[in-house]
Amino acid sequence: MQRTHETRLKYVIYECRDLVSAAAHLSALRARLLAAGAEGFIVPRSDEYLGEYVPLSAERLFWLTGFSGSAGLAVVLPDRAAIFTDGRYTTQVAQQTDPSLWERHHLTEAPPADWLRQHAAGKRVGYDPRLLPASAVERFAASGAVLVPLAENPLDAAWTDRPAAPTATAVPHELRFAGVSATEKRAAAASRLHQVGEHAAVLADAHSVAWLLNIRGGDLGYTPLALAQALLRTDGRVELFIDPAKVTDELREHLGNAVSLHAPENWGETLAELSGQRVRVDPDSTPAWFGIQLREAGAEVTTGEDPCRLPRARKNPTEQDGARAAHARDAVALARFLHWFSVEAGKGGLTEVGTADQLLAFRRELDGFRAESFPAIAGSGPNGAIVHYRASAESDRRIGRNEVMLIDSGAQFPDGTTDVTRTLWTGPDPAPAELRARYTRVLRGHVALATLRFPQGVAGPHLDSIARRPLWDAGLDYDHGTGHGVGSFLSVHEGPVAFSRAARAVPLEEGMILSDEPGFYLPGEYGIRIENLLLVQPAGPGLSGRPWLSFETLTLAPYERPLIEPALLTPEERDWVDTYHARVLAEVGPQLDADAAAWLAAACAPLSEAPAAA
Amino acid sequence: MQRTHETRLKYVIYECRDLVSAAAHLSALRARLLAAGAEGFIVPRSDEYLGEYVPLSAERLFWLTGFSGSAGLAVVLPDRAAIFTDGRYTTQVAQQTDPSLWERHHLTEAPPADWLRQHAAGKRVGYDPRLLPASAVERFAASGAVLVPLAENPLDAAWTDRPAAPTATAVPHELRFAGVSATEKRAAAASRLHQVGEHAAVLADAHSVAWLLNIRGGDLGYTPLALAQALLRTDGRVELFIDPAKVTDELREHLGNAVSLHAPENWGETLAELSGQRVRVDPDSTPAWFGIQLREAGAEVTTGEDPCRLPRARKNPTEQDGARAAHARDAVALARFLHWFSVEAGKGGLTEVGTADQLLAFRRELDGFRAESFPAIAGSGPNGAIVHYRASAESDRRIGRNEVMLIDSGAQFPDGTTDVTRTLWTGPDPAPAELRARYTRVLRGHVALATLRFPQGVAGPHLDSIARRPLWDAGLDYDHGTGHGVGSFLSVHEGPVAFSRAARAVPLEEGMILSDEPGFYLPGEYGIRIENLLLVQPAGPGLSGRPWLSFETLTLAPYERPLIEPALLTPEERDWVDTYHARVLAEVGPQLDADAAAWLAAACAPLSEAPAAA
Repeated sequence: MQRTHETRLKYVIYECRDLVSAAAHLSALRARLLAAGAEGFIVPRSDEYLGEYVPLSAERLFWLTGFSGSAGLAVVLPDRAAIFTDGRYTTQVAQQTDPSLWERHHLTEAPPADWLRQHAAGKRVGYDPRLLPASAVERFAASGAVLVPLAENPLDAAWTDRPAAPTATAVPHELRFAGVSATEKRAAAASRLHQVGEHAAVLADAHSVAWLLNIRGGDLGYTPLALAQALLRTDGRVELFIDPAKVTDELREHLGNAVSLHAPENWGETLAELSGQRVRVDPDSTPAWFGIQLREAGAEVTTGEDPCRLPRARKNPTEQDGARAAHARDAVALARFLHWFSVEAGKGGLTEVGTADQLLAFRRELDGFRAESFPAIAGSGPNGAIVHYRASAESDRRIGRNEVMLIDSGAQFPDGTTDVTRTLWTGPDPAPAELRARYTRVLRGHVALATLRFPQGVAGPHLDSIARRPLWDAGLDYDHGTGHGVGSFLSVHEGPVAFSRAARAVPLEEGMILSDEPGFYLPGEYGIRIENLLLVQPAGPGLSGRPWLSFETLTLAPYERPLIEPALLTPEERDWVDTYHARVLAEVGPQLDADAAAWLAAACAPLSEAPAAA
Repeated sequence: MQRTHETRLKYVIYECRDLVSAAAHLSALRARLLAAGAEGFIVPRSDEYLGEYVPLSAERLFWLTGFSGSAGLAVVLPDRAAIFTDGRYTTQVAQQTDPSLWERHHLTEAPPADWLRQHAAGKRVGYDPRLLPASAVERFAASGAVLVPLAENPLDAAWTDRPAAPTATAVPHELRFAGVSATEKRAAAASRLHQVGEHAAVLADAHSVAWLLNIRGGDLGYTPLALAQALLRTDGRVELFIDPAKVTDELREHLGNAVSLHAPENWGETLAELSGQRVRVDPDSTPAWFGIQLREAGAEVTTGEDPCRLPRARKNPTEQDGARAAHARDAVALARFLHWFSVEAGKGGLTEVGTADQLLAFRRELDGFRAESFPAIAGSGPNGAIVHYRASAESDRRIGRNEVMLIDSGAQFPDGTTDVTRTLWTGPDPAPAELRARYTRVLRGHVALATLRFPQGVAGPHLDSIARRPLWDAGLDYDHGTGHGVGSFLSVHEGPVAFSRAARAVPLEEGMILSDEPGFYLPGEYGIRIENLLLVQPAGPGLSGRPWLSFETLTLAPYERPLIEPALLTPEERDWVDTYHARVLAEVGPQLDADAAAWLAAACAPLSEAPAAA
């Protein structure tokens, strides 16, 4: 998917623009506030699809503040303005925003609602109801500010050089990859609505629409998504709201007669006709606008989970086989890359960007490769300790000798999405003992989760600590979740399940795919992270007869033996690593050239044998 | 506290009454429904304090159905009736209720809301708003039934031989035990309300009132509680609603001028005067009635947590020292009991009730012993596999040779509440290898939690799986939480923290006390459970500078060496058990007579040494 590279380029150009415009943009927004009948305005990062990635045309927070991170929110009052970001972006927001314009706060530790309580109690604070979920509006309204939904977004009016919205062609997601037809999915989802007495459900999340109708697209850089929304009826019919520019005859034929097509600006008319109907709205994934419109129309709004969210997370057998096949292909590029790196790192002269580009180049040779599944993170030395580091032309760093190199990357294939992290040692000297001990603790946590067997009913938040224990025992930790759900040729970060204390306790089920990626970060020195994707599988009934589950490891790439201290592993852990390495060698080795195959054989040799020469 | 024993006796008498009356009671209730303007009625187990234990005068569910368990709910319609209980009570509810009168359902797997949806959609179903929290009413209302709060409870009208409500004297909880004065607690709680702009908070939970005002009482069998409710104002004043029969001059003097006394039936007048005030109501621990009355009065109801709940859980230094002292004393009775049991079990002739009575007898000799903290569970052989088993005259079982005996018990002291479980082997033969392996896995889980060190921010639901892993690895599990919060001379089951997947994710904090009690139950054969209480303590800052926490073990009693298989423990686990046993011996041994001391020395010998002779 060439689009990816173009989009990346655009971002880089965009990020280099003059920061001076931030002051002008803030003034332009303020100038339009009073006319809009508001004394303040809330600007979230999200667009009307409330997803993780937004197209350039929806980078409102960036346009206004200069901050380009993936999560944040700004509040503008006549005399002060604040931007809120999380711990990942503390440094970045300080670099990208002007402190004379913007107060900078932590999104959860000093949340916007507290700031509103202090500075805007009783004031009319506007928001664009298309861009905020009802749950967020409620949170802000609890501050005592009077939240006012604005029919016209004053920022959009001020944003005169706004790029056009993307109009990439939407395409069918073939049945040989999807496994279940859209007709079947529509019928099943509609029947679940019917069972609880609802007449329709708003699908505001484009991922749900993509899953339900088996369509994909190219509106975003890393997720093969056609931005679209839909209304699902209990008879299985769907009204699809999508820019007509994205629709081809092929798509029309794929969708069939039960799916009618509408331009997004016609949502209002459809909602207005739902008087007297019980309509489900997911308060977290649906803009507040839908609830407002539905109530005005006299519909009965029921709050409930997006009916596609859980079925989407449970990959069907075809998707599971697709994930295995995609990972097997991706493993060849990974092995070639790791071999290449082991050779080149010894010579010197590598850079972070050059390294990430080389991995991408190996992936481009793979059957079905469509795009990276997210911007690769290639952090050497101290850059590895910045969890969401992304090497750019300005930050790019020459990779030194005897350094730690963290590379986190993934690919989109039509049969599956990959995401893998390995932490490497450039040599030529042996890694220091303390570093080896810490890498080995991260590995032990990673293995502890991968080898877990557990009864049905257990959820991701309950398992996060399993991967942390080996680090906790040494007073070490990492400031991110242990893993996230992963889509099937969809978003690499997919809800609702995650190995994270912050996630909802949704029980794990057969077919779900999650990452297992504990880490350790020593600021100013290095970062360690080890990541495989795991597929939840049945493990036979336990003694009580209740079904049990375990994980199948999808990712195939050797761990970094110069960083493993075998004496710190239990015999069971050593056996597991050896067995995994033997599997990697058996599945990947035969597809490599002689040099790479020899390297892989050494990298996958049992840990009891002497480490391979560097 | 002699009251305990009297109450126990009353329960036994009550449980023996003729079951035939259940049909008459159900008819009597139905006869009054129509007059009350309802087509159905909901009967919860809880009384107006929504606590775990209720006095005999509030055993409505038992009166109506014959079911005497500690959790359940009945729904009565003109033509059918159902009782809902959880997995602990499946057997008991089947024994105690008449299937021709009552459908029996699982409280969470086939919940009342589903049953209402099926049988009462659109019907007017009455409830007593004094006995159900608003959160439960909302859940039931989502079924489509029309929930109608009834001013008069038709069951109470039908219950002609209802016992009188308890009127035990309420007494001050001395400052040397409470650690912080009621004046200080009132001021701090009031200030927290003030900070968020609230004018008052309803305290419907009698435990919160007891904690806030440093009062205790004797209205319930196992929790030293004076049943009472209160309204806390932001100026620190409190209106205390308590039966005047419980109030003495000493109590009046203790409470002081800032606490005014009112009869519970005068709540309505006080609430009616709160027009225009912002009043906090905890939706989970407050009967729906309060919200209804406040809204009628024109008050602004804000939903938020009971402001005493979290401070109550964080034991202050005096309470922490009290807990240590209470456990040190309790340990002497435990050691004497375990020694006694080891001698008597060899002779034969012991019964479950006799064993529990002997433990109680040893405890009665302890300084400050007031009551058991819950009805002791003494389950031998197959009875041990019934998690909430309570030996009674009918079920009492002679304890055999070569059997597993589970004993779970606790005590109330003014300086602390204890709760301990040990699983014993009666001998004389060595325990079977499979049993030893399973006991050792339970012990490993128990130790895994006790030895954990973790960063601040981690909550009980995140740690439950740490104790399960050694069992999970063998396909074994237990169907209850790993541990619950414990009060300070208050309820042995205290929220909001718990090592349980079902608990809210409230971060653990210094001073909290929780039980650590993994188990394994083989139905029809035996039950294994090992329980100590843990006190959360600071563990110094981690590498990141964030504060870390660890657990101090409060309970002092040897584990059962005939059931430990040392070869299945890691060296670290063996060391931990040896160190703990050495501590038990050093602290308890000097307080025992020569025979018991010798027995304890053998029980606490390092695991590497040969097991003591039986």
